[in-house]
Amino acid sequence: MDLAALREPIVQAPLAGGGSTPGLAAAVNEAGGLGFLAAGYKTAGMVRDEIHTLRSLTGEPFGVNIFSPPMPVTKGRGLESYSTRLQPEAERYRVQLGEPRHDDDDFDAKCKLVADERVPVVSFTFGCPEPDMVARLHAAGCDVWVTVTNPHEAVDAQSAGTDALVVQGFEAGGHRGYFKDESDAEDLGLLVALRLVAHRVGLPLIAAGGIADGQSVAAVLCAGAAAAQIGSALMLSPEAGTSAPHRSVLAVPGSTRLTRAFSGRQARGIVNRFMREHGADAPTAYPDVHHLTAPIRAAARTAGDPEAINLWAGQAHALARSEPAADTVRRLGAEARDAVRLAARRLEPPR
Amino acid sequence: MDLAALREPIVQAPLAGGGSTPGLAAAVNEAGGLGFLAAGYKTAGMVRDEIHTLRSLTGEPFGVNIFSPPMPVTKGRGLESYSTRLQPEAERYRVQLGEPRHDDDDFDAKCKLVADERVPVVSFTFGCPEPDMVARLHAAGCDVWVTVTNPHEAVDAQSAGTDALVVQGFEAGGHRGYFKDESDAEDLGLLVALRLVAHRVGLPLIAAGGIADGQSVAAVLCAGAAAAQIGSALMLSPEAGTSAPHRSVLAVPGSTRLTRAFSGRQARGIVNRFMREHGADAPTAYPDVHHLTAPIRAAARTAGDPEAINLWAGQAHALARSEPAADTVRRLGAEARDAVRLAARRLEPPR
Repeated sequence: MDLAALREPIVQAPLAGGGSTPGLAAAVNEAGGLGFLAAGYKTAGMVRDEIHTLRSLTGEPFGVNIFSPPMPVTKGRGLESYSTRLQPEAERYRVQLGEPRHDDDDFDAKCKLVADERVPVVSFTFGCPEPDMVARLHAAGCDVWVTVTNPHEAVDAQSAGTDALVVQGFEAGGHRGYFKDESDAEDLGLLVALRLVAHRVGLPLIAAGGIADGQSVAAVLCAGAAAAQIGSALMLSPEAGTSAPHRSVLAVPGSTRLTRAFSGRQARGIVNRFMREHGADAPTAYPDVHHLTAPIRAAARTAGDPEAINLWAGQAHALARSEPAADTVRRLGAEARDAVRLAARRLEPPR
Repeated sequence: MDLAALREPIVQAPLAGGGSTPGLAAAVNEAGGLGFLAAGYKTAGMVRDEIHTLRSLTGEPFGVNIFSPPMPVTKGRGLESYSTRLQPEAERYRVQLGEPRHDDDDFDAKCKLVADERVPVVSFTFGCPEPDMVARLHAAGCDVWVTVTNPHEAVDAQSAGTDALVVQGFEAGGHRGYFKDESDAEDLGLLVALRLVAHRVGLPLIAAGGIADGQSVAAVLCAGAAAAQIGSALMLSPEAGTSAPHRSVLAVPGSTRLTRAFSGRQARGIVNRFMREHGADAPTAYPDVHHLTAPIRAAARTAGDPEAINLWAGQAHALARSEPAADTVRRLGAEARDAVRLAARRLEPPR
């Protein structure tokens, strides 16, 4: 997968847990970007069906994103008291709390699937696969990308033989992609993360986090990225699977924050009641807390109530527009070309 | 002050409390950037002397940065218990704790000084001056810039009649420039802050935070900035007033974090013992805590001990080089031109 061959240097964020659909990936491909499917929170069988649907819609290369197995959770570390705390929420939304399982989201089956399907790009989030898994995917014709949040993770991922890195700034919506426990990590802004990673590894970099217009696409290309990954900017498109209450808050200004309240792992979303009331008490226990809160979130979604849903969004979400995804990709490309022209004029050799 | 007239689109960060010297500002000017003096923590008389020294070194325009008056501090809010907590530190460094004064850093005298001296650019941090003060500075021939951290502050500053905005991303070293208490504010990354501000106000923007090489300079120009402000990237230059222990930790990788431990207001510095041990307990009380800790920091600096100094640094500090400041400005300009050329090539009209 040669990123330079994309007509637009734009990669769709996988958008696990809501936005991702084959129609969205196909629309991004149609406009010259790289579409992605999210394998997260689905069975391998569901992902296979989506791959087949996408292939019926487009002949272009695409990617599938897989969650790496989660970190172990220290037994009992706040999980029981968090369950107790959430009991009134369950009653409020007339559901039972979910079972706080510590599963690996069917990692092995999904890796086998993408190899069998010879998916052009397989990206991993929450950690880097072992070198022999990378080699197996290479043998199947897959390129392997890994999401990193700092130069240490970038060096580790390069050592494992990966082909490209998705460099995620702290501005990004959804889960932070760090490999290990976050408590001591520095949350790097996207520009800094790109520059520090570019100084350490020679792989192509895909910039992710807070990119919602073409000026930002141009910016990250200047900062050394081969392409920009966009998520929130596509979530209002008709092709996205974004829920109605999520759509209602995405396109208006509203603060976002990192929280463990919904899933037990830091993720950025628009601030709402659930986050405010429970964020400080949520344990580091992913995906256990994800399963625990799933029924509450599903009920709130059905009720059209944004106050108990994980409203994942990047810091620039207010710039998202309700327009077909292909229009967004083309618009961002055009804005990026204008932005680079203006910057080049400003930088003309000093007089 | 026409930013487009600068030979390089680079503005020196004021670097109050250490880095700032007339020699540094003159060197930045010499290379085609815009040099700055920091008025913060000095008497108006000391600032006048520095302005005169700078004018003896360069005929180019320059700026002076002034701290806006601090927010009121809720009486007793943690200040006494923080003093008690720091008593062993004072004993360790054989000093008396400073008096936790709540002063305004001689705001009126400094505003009068820069007007009398007809300083070309007067920038404010920690809030926006009243419209009549902006008008008075305009009448004296000064341009007025204000540091903002989000679009709300940008709109307020534009309403006050300011001429340009320094948009500070959370990556920046030193104090966060927000106008009011930070506890509920979203810490925006630089790229997002620029784009959200550019969508709301039409003023020229100077981008600040984590910019330490020319690729990042090019990036912020693409994102709509008229110039990039650089701080950490200049702190290892021979012209900077950076202390020896501060220099020793700047150019090597090392995590930074926001902390109130040293001053009572959020500021980014390299993580050290003092920050780790006291950061969580420091009250929101600026500049009271600044005065309280000043003798400890001075003694640690004299002893060459970086573990109790406010090691202000942006997230990209490891990219700083020990080279003359003029070389840094010219190098960043050259790197920016290369970066824009590469990005333009990548973005050539889609095939």
